[in-house]
Amino acid sequence: MLVIGERINATRKSMGEAITKKDSDFIRQEAVKQLEAGADILDVNCGMSVKDESSNMEWLVNTVQDAADTSLVIDSPNPAVIESGLKLCRKKAIVNSITGEKERIEKIMPLVEKYNADVIALTMDEKGMPNTSEERYNIAEKIADSIKKYKVPLDRVYFDLLVRPISTEPNQANEFLGAVSLVKKNLKAKTVCGLSNISFGLPNRKLINATFLTMSFYAGLDAAIIDPTDKNMMLTIRSSEALLARDEYCLKYITAFREGK
Amino acid sequence: MLVIGERINATRKSMGEAITKKDSDFIRQEAVKQLEAGADILDVNCGMSVKDESSNMEWLVNTVQDAADTSLVIDSPNPAVIESGLKLCRKKAIVNSITGEKERIEKIMPLVEKYNADVIALTMDEKGMPNTSEERYNIAEKIADSIKKYKVPLDRVYFDLLVRPISTEPNQANEFLGAVSLVKKNLKAKTVCGLSNISFGLPNRKLINATFLTMSFYAGLDAAIIDPTDKNMMLTIRSSEALLARDEYCLKYITAFREGK
Repeated sequence: MLVIGERINATRKSMGEAITKKDSDFIRQEAVKQLEAGADILDVNCGMSVKDESSNMEWLVNTVQDAADTSLVIDSPNPAVIESGLKLCRKKAIVNSITGEKERIEKIMPLVEKYNADVIALTMDEKGMPNTSEERYNIAEKIADSIKKYKVPLDRVYFDLLVRPISTEPNQANEFLGAVSLVKKNLKAKTVCGLSNISFGLPNRKLINATFLTMSFYAGLDAAIIDPTDKNMMLTIRSSEALLARDEYCLKYITAFREGK
Repeated sequence: MLVIGERINATRKSMGEAITKKDSDFIRQEAVKQLEAGADILDVNCGMSVKDESSNMEWLVNTVQDAADTSLVIDSPNPAVIESGLKLCRKKAIVNSITGEKERIEKIMPLVEKYNADVIALTMDEKGMPNTSEERYNIAEKIADSIKKYKVPLDRVYFDLLVRPISTEPNQANEFLGAVSLVKKNLKAKTVCGLSNISFGLPNRKLINATFLTMSFYAGLDAAIIDPTDKNMMLTIRSSEALLARDEYCLKYITAFREGK
């Protein structure tokens, strides 16, 4: 399971303020804290409402890379901002994200190709958000077809199959899990998700999120965008890896337990 | 998920003593505690080393039924002891257990038929314990074939697919989960397991057990033999049910959370 740390995101209030004030200590601490907690790679999102988005992204990428030797997920819908980040990345990056929308694919995929990055593709398009497993899969297939002309093989694409709350639509976990299975069975691509939407409106959200991650992992999920400082979540990931024989001698699990992660 | 409470078992020291001393208050408390914690049905096992096993089973069944209006799982390898329990059951019972062994099938299945019970079938036979998914499934298929002559349809059979520790054999969770999928796909039978073996030899066993139960539930597990007073385990079951749309409006989950289960 590729753990993508989600905390460096301008939509979080304290993070938005740190970016505005160029508080590099705060950013550095967030980077180190997430990696120590078990993140494999860090998402960086400098927000969309700020007028200096490209220069903010440059500052953010440099600040995080100065703090830690880590790969980054460059998170923006704006091609210019994405390139501002990508051109500074010292390691292979992931672009977050394209969608099924033609214009977004045509502006962003050349950058993914140019900078030899991986890419996250949200399975939504001009018609909006999918509801069923099949609708999610059909958009993934359409995206896979649209990006054939770029030198980015499908095993460098992470389809984000869009988690929606079960509190309002009870079958949404099943639809998501079914979509993961369909993608893993039919496309040689990877799958990713942000988890926390699943539990919107319910009590004890961390438990629902962790239980859902376990099911998703078993269904074939390759990567998750999470808060790695959530100890219960990280231990759930480590125990899932141990159970599915992806952690030799359960060493990562035992280490995480000893370190109190 | 059918939650089978495992606590009334003579192999637990305090329980063995209570049975020997005929401490009915202790037994009653254990029964009520498990049902209040969320058990759907209670396993009763009066041990094998005691010379008065049949009379102990009679006492145990009556004591538990006097304490609570519950169905029972009559747990013994001994046909005479099983009948001692079955004949006193006021509600539909489950017999725990037959195996693939011919003699055990021929002595116990007539009782299952006579008392209109369900039955747990361990997927092991004269040759010992299975290792792979396929070995487990093959024994299940053989048992399904052997019991055709009794008036006990397959939807009243719970195959116990034998959980073994991942600490010594890392692929055992995968083998178990694969066997659950095979049984659910090919036989119109139910599946059950005792969980705790999976985490033998590892730290924080409750977390591994709960994570494994979540995966098993998603793979199709129908019933689990657990300690329902383990709050984390019960909340994991309730959150799994909510996620898989088997808990309308997440009501059981929300109630369990409010009651601190």
